[in-house]
Parts: sequence; structure tokens; C-alpha cells
Amino acid sequence: MPISTRLKPNLYKDSVALMRIAEQLLQDPQIIRATLVMATPANKEILEEAGLLNGAAGAAYPSDLIIVVEASSQAAADAAFEKVDASLSRAAIQTSGSTAEAAPRSLSMGLPRLAHANIAQISAPGAYAGAEALKAVKAGLNVFLFSDNVPLEQEVAVKRLAQAKGLLVMGPDCGTAIIGGVPLGFANVVRRGRIGYVGASGTGLQEVTAQTHLLGEGISHAIGTGGRDVKAEVGGITLLMALDLLEADPATEVIGIVSKPPAPAVMNAVIERAGRAGKPVVVCFLGGERIGAPANVHQTVNLYDCAAACVALARRQPPVASKFAPGKSAQGFAATQKYIRGLFSGGTFCTEAQVALRDTGVSAWSNVPLSQASALPDPRHSQEHTLLDLGDDDFTVGKPHPMIDPSTRVARIAVEAADPATAVILLDVVLGYAGHPDPAGALVPAILKAQTGAQAQGRRVVFVAFVCGTEEDPQVRSEQEARLLDAGCLLGRSSTEAARMAVALVAA
Amino acid sequence: MPISTRLKPNLYKDSVALMRIAEQLLQDPQIIRATLVMATPANKEILEEAGLLNGAAGAAYPSDLIIVVEASSQAAADAAFEKVDASLSRAAIQTSGSTAEAAPRSLSMGLPRLAHANIAQISAPGAYAGAEALKAVKAGLNVFLFSDNVPLEQEVAVKRLAQAKGLLVMGPDCGTAIIGGVPLGFANVVRRGRIGYVGASGTGLQEVTAQTHLLGEGISHAIGTGGRDVKAEVGGITLLMALDLLEADPATEVIGIVSKPPAPAVMNAVIERAGRAGKPVVVCFLGGERIGAPANVHQTVNLYDCAAACVALARRQPPVASKFAPGKSAQGFAATQKYIRGLFSGGTFCTEAQVALRDTGVSAWSNVPLSQASALPDPRHSQEHTLLDLGDDDFTVGKPHPMIDPSTRVARIAVEAADPATAVILLDVVLGYAGHPDPAGALVPAILKAQTGAQAQGRRVVFVAFVCGTEEDPQVRSEQEARLLDAGCLLGRSSTEAARMAVALVAA
Repeated sequence: MPISTRLKPNLYKDSVALMRIAEQLLQDPQIIRATLVMATPANKEILEEAGLLNGAAGAAYPSDLIIVVEASSQAAADAAFEKVDASLSRAAIQTSGSTAEAAPRSLSMGLPRLAHANIAQISAPGAYAGAEALKAVKAGLNVFLFSDNVPLEQEVAVKRLAQAKGLLVMGPDCGTAIIGGVPLGFANVVRRGRIGYVGASGTGLQEVTAQTHLLGEGISHAIGTGGRDVKAEVGGITLLMALDLLEADPATEVIGIVSKPPAPAVMNAVIERAGRAGKPVVVCFLGGERIGAPANVHQTVNLYDCAAACVALARRQPPVASKFAPGKSAQGFAATQKYIRGLFSGGTFCTEAQVALRDTGVSAWSNVPLSQASALPDPRHSQEHTLLDLGDDDFTVGKPHPMIDPSTRVARIAVEAADPATAVILLDVVLGYAGHPDPAGALVPAILKAQTGAQAQGRRVVFVAFVCGTEEDPQVRSEQEARLLDAGCLLGRSSTEAARMAVALVAA
Repeated sequence: MPISTRLKPNLYKDSVALMRIAEQLLQDPQIIRATLVMATPANKEILEEAGLLNGAAGAAYPSDLIIVVEASSQAAADAAFEKVDASLSRAAIQTSGSTAEAAPRSLSMGLPRLAHANIAQISAPGAYAGAEALKAVKAGLNVFLFSDNVPLEQEVAVKRLAQAKGLLVMGPDCGTAIIGGVPLGFANVVRRGRIGYVGASGTGLQEVTAQTHLLGEGISHAIGTGGRDVKAEVGGITLLMALDLLEADPATEVIGIVSKPPAPAVMNAVIERAGRAGKPVVVCFLGGERIGAPANVHQTVNLYDCAAACVALARRQPPVASKFAPGKSAQGFAATQKYIRGLFSGGTFCTEAQVALRDTGVSAWSNVPLSQASALPDPRHSQEHTLLDLGDDDFTVGKPHPMIDPSTRVARIAVEAADPATAVILLDVVLGYAGHPDPAGALVPAILKAQTGAQAQGRRVVFVAFVCGTEEDPQVRSEQEARLLDAGCLLGRSSTEAARMAVALVAA
């Protein structure tokens, strides 16, 4: 297949725009490969490894655009280059807008047009980004610096100058921020609210803001610092300034901090600053140890726990303790352990699990079987894979339904866990009016006891559960899920998913 | 330990109230066992098996209440009986209310006080419940019949009379309904909205209403029918009337039906009725086969899919197809398959997964290691358990970030799946502004190809994924999750949960 190369001297396009154009070209089945890159030394090296670097491209400058197309015919390649030209000129038109006015190409061109601008978002190759950030700070702007590969000494210089001027520099390599509801960089759509985050971690900040939203609360501000902010050289300048801002912000009732463990001196400064914030502060130093912390500072071990603790504190509830002690080591099933035992309070969930097992080629006995061939002879005794509806008449004579009274299920969990053939115990937890006020909590002691008992006999019983209900239910979905997770259960999103997970475990 | 028994002649309390009293007694550590039951033959049998039935209790009538307490001392037992008396009299006071007027003890006593009542909720022992329902229907009331153990011929008689009078009988054994926003029986707190459900399945109805709420839509009405309504003897009287009501209801834009597969004649009648409803109808006959259905009738195989299809149709979107073909049979890992390979687009998620593995005693190599001891020598080659941040500089020179450009991850999925040592591939999918418009969809072809390729070589590669983002994100969390589930992935709720699931799989 012919490989053709074109060069566009002095035409800078960012890598995302170039990827989009390449994707368009590849929709034509006649195009085998299509690559558009700036002719930086690194990119030229990659092209060379792929055998795509010809003489002209090899001599190109970093400010030149290289286009390489492998097509089934020269005509197809030519058509591709025409498409590239059209895309590039369309992009230029879009950039310049429909007015006659030229698009601003620098900070000094753009600033006079936006008199009230107070923040600059900078996305440029790392070698230039630091200088742009410095210009912005000198012009009195806060900075969101998306670019990476900015030299550390430039970061320190820009941040120190900004600090002296009372300006915030988020980044370099700052992936995410939400300032007063405005998303910068990668950011999720979350409601506004009373929890403010600061993060030296882009996706970490995305996750805590998204989980906060999923848990029903909202975000005042989410301030990114860039990952190196917590290094000793930078000293946490941005993180500490962000804490000042969140403390002063009346909309922020709880502050969350997400970061890898900072350098020791930075850690001390952050904890000391958090201790006198006058608001509850939740910290998550991913991978770090438990540290001594003032009373208002709550430490968590993962992102979900961090968000959940912030939500609980905002609601004036005690946050669930985040577990620092290393968990039990992952032990395999003993040779005898082969089967799934489902103990359901909802009859439909028992049926749904049977369908899910059947659809993966696994048959299960049941007291409410899909067909008579799989009817469990004696509901009091499980055999092979068994899925039980504990709300069926076999189990409810003279007793309340298991959605109200956990005693039948508690007793049966002990029986199944003691059976050397049991590998996985599958549970539903149904919330809502008229049900048990804490159905997960009612099962947890039995779950813990079952795990300990099996372990003492050299076995490992895995619990897989799922919750039916909403955040608004009296029992609160997320709180019930947290109890199950805390007891070491794996959680499925639905009865079908929990059953699939159980099958994957016993198949493995 | 002494066992003491007391009898309360002619004092009926339902089993839930009695359970609550027993729970209170058991909070005293001196109380070993506490049982309060009506002296029905079935309950007396249970007491006898437990060795708790003494002479006086043995002679009791079904209308008598038996209280049995095992305590560490007679004094403790006496104190318990005093508590029981106090609870029972308190309950009596609460029932009679604070006014001088006597509480109504029958339908005929109660009706005159509620002139506009149009529904009776009946919860009584099955032997009497049918007669109560008949009285209610004769008095012109719709009925929510919570009780079970109502004889089938009574159900038929009550429903036929009600049908003739244009009244709805939900039940017997009807666990759930939400009528015009009012919950009856077990029901979840869900927002009101444009999706109406009818279900011959109590927890099934709870699950589709809760999932609808979780997906951001709401419920017009949720009408329970009782599980036997779809039997040939009853003929789906209530289900068909419910479809009439939901068709006529202007607030209902989409109708969902949840049931075990009805008897053939009932199935035909339901499908025919649904076909001329003039609205989209989603059916989920749990455990049934695909059936011929009119164009407006969309068939699904599980409760989550049913809710998701209703939500999609309400939003004028095409629902994701629900899979009827039995899935692949669950195959075990080959002997070579031992390791987790994590391919992350979010650096923090890679760190979080390392922490999760470490906390279960599993160490992993990484290009962004928790400590230098676990630094992966060559990021291009995984070894043992390996967790990679594909957004790190090693992988992004001259390329967009993997949250935008999936190509690096797509290529690496193929590499890891081809490695006979790989058991589980762990993925994050990050949503939000600036990210890929369909990050899960961009990975799915690679996931499917990896599974097929491994299978051809007698191996099974399990994909475990999780999504960071919200329902409001441009990519829509539930839609991205649906794509991953559809491709056979197991889903964790967070990076930590996904990592725990991966550990459980390789440990098994």
C-alpha cells in the first residue's frame, strides 16, 4: 500500500484536533493508516519506529505539521489530503469566528476585549506554557494551567509570584477544576452545593465530585493544584491558598482534600492549616498511612470514602470510619468450595438470579424454580448451586416476611457458610417503607461471623450482595451499601449483576 | 436457663408488631430467647420443635397470644413479661388514638368516617382476608390486598366482582404499589414522573421503580396485581385493567410490565392489549423466551433492562437491546492465568487500585508505583500483577491523553489479553467535559475481540470496569455502564471496588 506524506510548515494544531481529523480519515475503508502530528523530535522518533518517516518529514521543524497517509490507492490518499485541507481551513474559520475581527492570538490581544476576565486557561506545549502562565499572572489573572511538561522551577517561580499577588495557579498538569459552577478542563456535570474540594489529583477530583453528586450533595468549588504542588520544592502553595479560599467561602460547609501523600513538611503545613479551618475537613492521601490530625480533620483511605465522609458531615451525620488496617489477605477457595448459595428476601430477585445463572450455562436448584426439573427437594437443605426465596411460604409460616424479620436469613447464612461446598453467598437487601429499618445492618453480624468461621476452617466464603432502593428511602441506599462493603461484601448493581459476579467467582 | 410461658387469651397482634416486642426484649443481655406468636397450629408446631411448648400453651386457641421467654433468671423473665405488658398496652393506646372516639374495628365502622375513601388496604390472616376484600369491593372500594394464603377461588370471585364494578383488586399477596404518589405496602421513595408500571411481582415492581428513579425519571403509578393474577384461572384480570388505566392516564407516557411468564392465554391477551395501548410498552417476563410482539412493545430480559428501556423511551431515545441469546457459558481460568492487568486512563485510579491490592496483601508493579520497590522496569511490558497509568508521560508523548484518545488503551488491551498469564483486565472509564464522547463505546470492540481471541485459545479473560461520572455528564453514566455490561464486563462502583472484585477473581 502506498504511503504518502505531506508537510504543512508553521501550522500548529493541538494533538486533540489532529486526532479528530485522523479519525475522520479512517472512516474511509480505503485508508489504512492516517497520522497527523507536529514534527517534534519525539513524534518524529515514533514515526521512524513505525517506518513512516520519509526524508522531507525528517527535516521538518517542531512548528511544522506532518501528515502521513497509507491508502489502498494514490487516489484515495489524495482524497484524504483534500479532506485534511478542508478540515484545517474549516478549523481556522471557526477559530476566527463569523465577525470580521481577528481572533486573539495572545493574552495581550485578548485581555482588552474581556475587561472582567479574572482567570486564564492555558493549554500549550509544556516548553511555552510556563511563560504564558507568568504573563497571565503579571496581568493580574488567576491561572488554570492544563499543560504538562512545564519545568518544576518554572512552576515554583510562577506560583511564588502569584502568591505574592494573591492569585491562584492551578497546575501545571491540572486536569480538572470547577470554579463557582464553571467547569475547567476535564470536569463532570455536578450540582452546586456545600462541599468544596481541593485536589492534587485530576481524576481524583473528578471522582469525589461525581460521587458527591451521586450521593445527592453538590459542589461549591473544586480546585485543582497539579500533582507536583505537594512536593517539597513547591511547598503546597496552591493547596494552602485553596484552603484559605474555601475557609473564607460562605457557601462551603465541608472541605475535602484529595492528594497523593504530600512531602512531610507540606503534609504538616496542610494538616496544621486544615486544623484551624473552622469547618470539618476530610482528607484522602491515597496510599498514605494514618496520621495524627486535629479533631475537625477526618481521614479516609479512598476516593469514595472521602466523598461519602464529606456528604455525611454536610448532613451533620457521623461519617463511616474508613479502614486503615490492611484487609484480610486474599485467600483462594478450598477444593471443596464450588457452589453459589443465594438467600433472597425478594422472590423476584431469586427468579432473576436463576435466569442470570441459566443464561451463563449454570443450573441452580430453587424452592421457586424456573421449571420443575430444578425444584429443590427439601428447602431446608441446599444442594449444589441453590437459590432460595426465603419469603416463600416454606419459610414464612407464623413469621414476618424476611424483608421485615431478618432472623430466618441470619440463621441460614450460618448454615450455608458452615457447608464446605459453599463458595459464594448471594444476598439481596430491599429498602423502602414497611421494610426493616436497617436490613443490611441486621445481616452484617451474621456475614462477619460466617467469614470468620469459614476462615478458621481454612475456607473463604465470599459474599456478593445488591441493594434495591433509592437514596431517598428511609434506609438510604448509599448507607446500606456502605455497611455491606464495610463487612467485606462485593456489590452488584442489580440482582442480575450480582448473580453474574457470583458465577464469575465460582467459575474462576 | 428457666423457660417461662404466658398466655394472653383473645389478643390478636400481627407478627410484625410481635417481632418488634421480641427484639426489644432481646436487647437485655439476660434474655436468651424471646418468642411472641399467635397460637396457630403452625406456630405451635414450631414452638414444639424448639422445645418451647408447655402444657398451657399447647391447649391455646389461634386467637390467643403465646409469650415464651428464656432468661438467665426468673427475675429477668418477670421483668421481660412486664415489658411485654407495657408494650401491648401502649400499642392499644396508640391504636385508639388520643380522642375519645373508639378506633374502627371493621370496614363498616370505618367507612362512614372517610367519605371520600376509594381504596381499602387489607392485611389479615389469609383465611379471613378474602372475605374482607369482598366486603370492600361490595362497598365500592378498590382493594390493596397485602395478605397471602388467600384461596385461589376467592381471588377469582373477588376480582370478577370488582371487574364488573370497574374496581381494581391489587393482590392477594400484593407487596407493593404506588398510586398517584401514595406508597402502599413495601414501596420505595421515588419521584413522580411519566413512567407507569404494572407488576405481578412485588420486589420486581420495587426494583423497576427504584432503578427508574436512580436513572433520573419518575413514576406515574406502580400497580401490583399479585403473583397469581397471570395464572390461567385468574386470567390476568387486574393486569389487563391496570393497562386500561395506564393507557387512559395522561401523566403516563411509557408503560412497563413486570411478571413471571403468564399462562399462554393470559400472555396473548396481555400482548394484544399492550399492542393497542397507543404508548410504548416495555415488558419483562422474567425467565421467559422472546415472543412475537407488536411494534410498540419492547421486550427485556431483566428488571434493570426493563427500567432502562422505559427511561430511554420516555426520553425518546432508542432502548439498548436486551439480550435473549443465552450468554457464553462460564468457563474457568486456564492454569496459566494468574494476574490482574490494570489499564487506567486516570492516574489517581491507578494509585487507588494499587492501594486496594496492597490492602488485600497483593502487590502489583506499576509505572506510577506506590514505592520504588514496585516500579515496573519497562512500562511496555507487564509482569505479574501490573497496574498502568496510560496517561503518564511514558504513553502520552506526541499523543492526546487516553481520556480523549483511546488508541493506546485499545492496543494494550489486545496485548494483555494475548498474554496467557492475564486473568483479569481492569479498566476505568472517565466521563465529563473535554473527554471522549463515548469512552466505553471506544473500548468495546477491543474488549469483545480480546474475549473471543482468548476463548479461541482455551482461556477466559474477565474484564472488570468502573465508570467515573454522573448521569448528567454528556456521556451519561448509565449509558456508559450499559455498554460495558453489554460487552460482558463486571462493574464496580468505584476504582477500589473494581480492584477488590479483580482480587477476588484471581484469588478464587
